[in-house]
Amino acid sequence: MAVNAAERDAMVRALHLAARGPRGANPQVGAVILSPEGRVLAEGWHQGAGTPHAEVDALSKLDPLEARGATAVVTLEPCNHTGRTGPCAVALIEAGIARVVYALDDPGAVSGGGADRLRASGVDVESGEQAEAAHAVIDGWLTAQRLGRPHVTVKWAQSLDGRAAADDGSSMWITGPEARADVHRRRAEADAIAVGTGTVLADDPSLTARDGDALLPHQPIPVVIGARVTPDDAAVRRHPHTPLFFDTHDLHAILADLHSRGVQSLFVEGGPTLASAFLAAGFADRILAYVAPVLLGGRRLALTDIGVGSLTEARRLTIDEWVPLGGDLLAIAHPVEETDPQHEGAA
Amino acid sequence: MAVNAAERDAMVRALHLAARGPRGANPQVGAVILSPEGRVLAEGWHQGAGTPHAEVDALSKLDPLEARGATAVVTLEPCNHTGRTGPCAVALIEAGIARVVYALDDPGAVSGGGADRLRASGVDVESGEQAEAAHAVIDGWLTAQRLGRPHVTVKWAQSLDGRAAADDGSSMWITGPEARADVHRRRAEADAIAVGTGTVLADDPSLTARDGDALLPHQPIPVVIGARVTPDDAAVRRHPHTPLFFDTHDLHAILADLHSRGVQSLFVEGGPTLASAFLAAGFADRILAYVAPVLLGGRRLALTDIGVGSLTEARRLTIDEWVPLGGDLLAIAHPVEETDPQHEGAA
Ligand SMILES: NC(=O)c1ccc[n+]([C@@H]2O[C@H](COP(=O)([O-])OP(=O)(O)OC[C@H]3O[C@@H](n4cnc5c(N)ncnc54)[C@H](OP(=O)(O)O)[C@@H]3O)[C@@H](O)[C@H]2O)c1
Ligand SMILES: NC(=O)c1ccc[n+]([C@@H]2O[C@H](COP(=O)([O-])OP(=O)(O)OC[C@H]3O[C@@H](n4cnc5c(N)ncnc54)[C@H](OP(=O)(O)O)[C@@H]3O)[C@@H](O)[C@H]2O)c1
Repeated sequence: MAVNAAERDAMVRALHLAARGPRGANPQVGAVILSPEGRVLAEGWHQGAGTPHAEVDALSKLDPLEARGATAVVTLEPCNHTGRTGPCAVALIEAGIARVVYALDDPGAVSGGGADRLRASGVDVESGEQAEAAHAVIDGWLTAQRLGRPHVTVKWAQSLDGRAAADDGSSMWITGPEARADVHRRRAEADAIAVGTGTVLADDPSLTARDGDALLPHQPIPVVIGARVTPDDAAVRRHPHTPLFFDTHDLHAILADLHSRGVQSLFVEGGPTLASAFLAAGFADRILAYVAPVLLGGRRLALTDIGVGSLTEARRLTIDEWVPLGGDLLAIAHPVEETDPQHEGAA
Repeated sequence: MAVNAAERDAMVRALHLAARGPRGANPQVGAVILSPEGRVLAEGWHQGAGTPHAEVDALSKLDPLEARGATAVVTLEPCNHTGRTGPCAVALIEAGIARVVYALDDPGAVSGGGADRLRASGVDVESGEQAEAAHAVIDGWLTAQRLGRPHVTVKWAQSLDGRAAADDGSSMWITGPEARADVHRRRAEADAIAVGTGTVLADDPSLTARDGDALLPHQPIPVVIGARVTPDDAAVRRHPHTPLFFDTHDLHAILADLHSRGVQSLFVEGGPTLASAFLAAGFADRILAYVAPVLLGGRRLALTDIGVGSLTEARRLTIDEWVPLGGDLLAIAHPVEETDPQHEGAA
């Protein structure tokens, strides 16, 4: 049985509801319960870890028996997993739902299998409705699920010859206003933004995402990494979000902690030591190198040591785009996978 | 009186003749002597410093009196200067030439003024005929005249993060085959190619311009700069041209010497120490940075110290072109002039 018009409309609505939930450790999900005639009986969405899943939230708004024979339209496959809440598949079966229409399969090894469980109980199940739109809503979450940690962008600004600053440390500004505005726009797309203590102590950055002096609507959570203490009057302490301080160099542990807090994407802004550490550890999913048409020479390298001893170990990049920004050039790149055919031929 | 068809044809011929002469300390010049009816009486060209200028070479092929009333068509303004040869203007006057058609004004402070001298003696003079084509023939010479030294291109290959090699010194190849072929084509356009002793001792380069294994028709003169001795069995000693060795670090003196030898353009291929020395001394008229999409980190910098202490002293570049070459990107650039308006706004 194909998806009918009422169900299609309900999915559009469910996707809107999903977006009401917070980005975080759990995916954003929306649900709409329809009567057999296609009337909306209830709506629900997931409001974050520890709260009911979207389907259960919607069912909770109905009287017992009211869901009998009804259709549940959900943006993600109902889960089959007992966590802080019971499996949604079971809740739907117990409520007497006759049909489930969902958009995306649940990618979780533990939580998946809900569709099979529903079918085994005689529920009619349709999958894939508006899957692309549903994917877009939880893209960041899906990526973090796949990686098992936040998606990491490592950003730096450099002279053509790879310097982050002149020999005396002066670095404001190597790149021009267009490049700096681009950085702020991209900060606003990240859940969190990280710098090392070196940058905090040298530059006292605010780590906000701004358009000129105005704060952009979304602000990333500031993260400071390193053992040295951030001064009480540091600008980062006046950030709209309370900063997270990690007094360790263990990036794996830091990413695990951020992941558990629901950080799906991390923007690493440097400095050179921290950026290089992320690259050396293989934790750079995307690289943004803003290259200014200037030569500096000297000792202030944009990257220090990234664990490459010989050319065969070079971190080869796929350049997704070279973006001209004023007089500067932004390289958007990602590391070549070991098995990537682009690797061949280069030596 | 305008230039007539026979004179125009004679100028085309004179430009061909000019190109027969060697590129060198003197400009390449061609000359054709026409009878008053427009018949070619004689042809000549300049065959290098110490030999007759083109007009005199042509006159020498005529009997005395044969040039009376004739027209001389020359690619460059006849000189007014007694050097190793007498002033051509005087030679033309004394031969009884009635009319001179030339292409380009002589830019030399000493040699210029020939046209005035001719006119003062009653010779009819036309200038500017096919000036653009004539300019193209002696472009390199004009540039070297203006600079008072050879035109210098500083070339290097680097990783995106500004390294010339991996930490163990391995550098073959950072860039791909397209970039390397481009380097060879550009080597073939230069009169000379320079490396430091460090590169000779580390890489034993042949410094030839090749297409695959085949030598390109024009080969630059190899130049090795530095005090250390080039081994007897070094590849550069098997170059089609005898290499020039300079056991000094005085780039000014080296350029003066090359200029006096007629080298109009020099291609500086590195390594990092020599390239940085040329940049620091302000002797880089053009920069070619081949940027490979790879990160290396470590200590092998493509440029070392270029005399920049603070960001205000940064060597700002005008990027003439970003040229994609296979997976690599070539930045063709020149230094921003102090008074260049592009300098404003950047800080
Ligand atoms: N061009 C650019 O894009 C850019 C961006 C940012 C900063 N900068 C410049 O960079 C300079 C600061 O450089 P920096 O390298 O000192 O800054 P940094 O990378 O921000 O800080 C380095 C510090 O981070 C800590 N750290 C955290 N995790 C680490 C790990 N896994 N490995 C090693 N250290 C770790 C260490 O501090 P503890 O000793 O406290 O543990 C280390 O000293 C400033 O001058 C700033 O202007 C440039
Ligand atoms: N990526 C690239 O494009 C590229 C190109 C070429 C070479 N390389 C690599 O570069 C490495 C060699 O580096 P390098 O820096 O030693 O090479 P280099 O620049 O070729 O040679 C340096 C030497 O040049 C001499 N020299 C001449 N003029 C000088 C001046 N004005 N100031 C200072 N020194 C001057 C000095 O030698 P003396 O002590 O003998 O006087 C100096 O030690 C090799 O590993 C090679 O593979 C890379």
